[in-house]
Amino acid sequence: MPTRVWRIGLVGFGNVGQGFVRILARKREELRKRYGFEFKIVGIADPIKGSVYDSEGLDPKLLVKLVDEKGHIKDYPGGRKDIDSLTICRSGDIDIVVEVTPTNIETGEPGLTHIRVALEHGKHVVTSNKGPIAVAYPELKELAERKGVMLRFEGVVLSGTPAINLALEAMAGVDITKVEGIVNGTTNFILTKMEEGMSYEEALREAQRLGYAEADPTMDVEGWDAAIKAVIIANVLMDARITIKDVEREGITKITPEDVKEALRNGQRIKLLMRVVREGGNVRASVKPERINLSHPLANVVGVTNALTFYTDHLGPVTIVGPGAGRIETGQAILSDILAIHRYHTRFR
Amino acid sequence: MPTRVWRIGLVGFGNVGQGFVRILARKREELRKRYGFEFKIVGIADPIKGSVYDSEGLDPKLLVKLVDEKGHIKDYPGGRKDIDSLTICRSGDIDIVVEVTPTNIETGEPGLTHIRVALEHGKHVVTSNKGPIAVAYPELKELAERKGVMLRFEGVVLSGTPAINLALEAMAGVDITKVEGIVNGTTNFILTKMEEGMSYEEALREAQRLGYAEADPTMDVEGWDAAIKAVIIANVLMDARITIKDVEREGITKITPEDVKEALRNGQRIKLLMRVVREGGNVRASVKPERINLSHPLANVVGVTNALTFYTDHLGPVTIVGPGAGRIETGQAILSDILAIHRYHTRFR
Repeated sequence: MPTRVWRIGLVGFGNVGQGFVRILARKREELRKRYGFEFKIVGIADPIKGSVYDSEGLDPKLLVKLVDEKGHIKDYPGGRKDIDSLTICRSGDIDIVVEVTPTNIETGEPGLTHIRVALEHGKHVVTSNKGPIAVAYPELKELAERKGVMLRFEGVVLSGTPAINLALEAMAGVDITKVEGIVNGTTNFILTKMEEGMSYEEALREAQRLGYAEADPTMDVEGWDAAIKAVIIANVLMDARITIKDVEREGITKITPEDVKEALRNGQRIKLLMRVVREGGNVRASVKPERINLSHPLANVVGVTNALTFYTDHLGPVTIVGPGAGRIETGQAILSDILAIHRYHTRFR
Repeated sequence: MPTRVWRIGLVGFGNVGQGFVRILARKREELRKRYGFEFKIVGIADPIKGSVYDSEGLDPKLLVKLVDEKGHIKDYPGGRKDIDSLTICRSGDIDIVVEVTPTNIETGEPGLTHIRVALEHGKHVVTSNKGPIAVAYPELKELAERKGVMLRFEGVVLSGTPAINLALEAMAGVDITKVEGIVNGTTNFILTKMEEGMSYEEALREAQRLGYAEADPTMDVEGWDAAIKAVIIANVLMDARITIKDVEREGITKITPEDVKEALRNGQRIKLLMRVVREGGNVRASVKPERINLSHPLANVVGVTNALTFYTDHLGPVTIVGPGAGRIETGQAILSDILAIHRYHTRFR
């Protein structure tokens, strides 16, 4: 089996970046044996966790240890510390830039600039950052093709559960006419807890306690997170050119325990459904709570689990169910994209 | 976008071969525009439907028309008719051999010989033939790697619903510890009909009337078809070396309407479950009817729909649900594998 050493730089070292490096630390030998995949982590730039750069490669186990013990990597022994995110994006020592900074759904920044610069400098880019993909996918795709590099972003929809790569690669050749799904674990968890008898407020507090919901839960409970995923699905899988303003959006904050109970009495469940429909050249996207029958393919998707159903010409509906968030889960999305780049070069799997 | 013309030969022109050529006839322009994928069908060899070969390429629309109107392609105008399957496997005019002859689960023949010869002659091979993969996967994989070509077989488990490529590519990097699923549509259809009140015999006749079950249904109802899929999953996804004799196997012929009703009364369903479990270096495979709770991820999979759950280290359980058989559905499996070969060469998606 052909092997290749990939030189990786990380822009951002929050949950996803750490999850990814954690996997690399654990699986180095396995990745080499199974895929002929070898790697060097050349640099990491994060304004809070710290930045470090060494063209000889950083030790993933030591990075994990530092962040576990100190919460940052500023004391990494050796390497340059005087670097920033653009150093990574421009470096001649790096083949693949992993862009995992926080999401901004309006401007896509700073991720959008990072990705543009990295692609301009002929680097493959792997990201789980929804902002840049939602805001500028056609431009970034064209730029990547012009530079002969790949832009991959499995993690933007269902973390490591295959969604983008399932549709674009594993199901290549089908026409997708509709995508329907439960793409926000926080709201699905809250709705499940309300079925078990909690009020909306109690369920939200429980979600916050477990780390599923943020202190300000607006992005999740008002449907913004699901709406941005609808934009990505429309623009990536259906060649649309919509923005988040085009998504019909309603959250779950007005759902009462009585609504949930009444649905159950009728053999139904209330789910926050994301739906993207292509009709001719027109694509419509929506996020709203809906009552679905218990026999519906998405009805049994409970708690933080997510699911997507792709309606296709050759296969009819195909549904995938799996986790939609998490540090290791999204780290897995990054890993699967990097292994895809590796496969495209070695032509082995 | 880079384009490339792929020269394709088909060994076998039954349901799957016809389904594949039907898709090519319909989507030629779309495949060129979306993927830069162009093709020539250089030859088809089938002892019943007829054989024809033309290095300039055959017309897929005409092939479909002939088979629809006459049931064979023996009257295709022009081209050589004096060819057989090995002509296709050896031809210097062909890049990709599509092996879609009938399955023999004991010897893998004649598919095994076709695939060996095609790989030996440096051709990529795409197949939906379970026999050769179940009988000789390690040998064929090694041969393909040595020759620098790809051997792909998405269609062997769930037709075009991603299963093999989902696990090997879209989820690359995970460790799979268990695979559980409903992988035979005929038996699942019969069990669903029995829940609706039919006897086993009535449900089987209905399945035969609809074309889901064969005149001799042994392969399906005694669990052989599911068992061969268990062998493939074990050997391909878990590096096992088992044969069909190693699969603990029990069919559905002894299930009574009373069994089905009693399960339903207890909030359960009887499903023919395929299960492959890896424990350390040991892999166990089984196919048997089991009672599962209605909340189980596979409980809502009814009729001819199939499903697989992969239990993984990074993602926990990931379930895919979709069709498990069909002419166009398996033709889609072939197409997705060929587009993967194309992607691996162009490095674009």
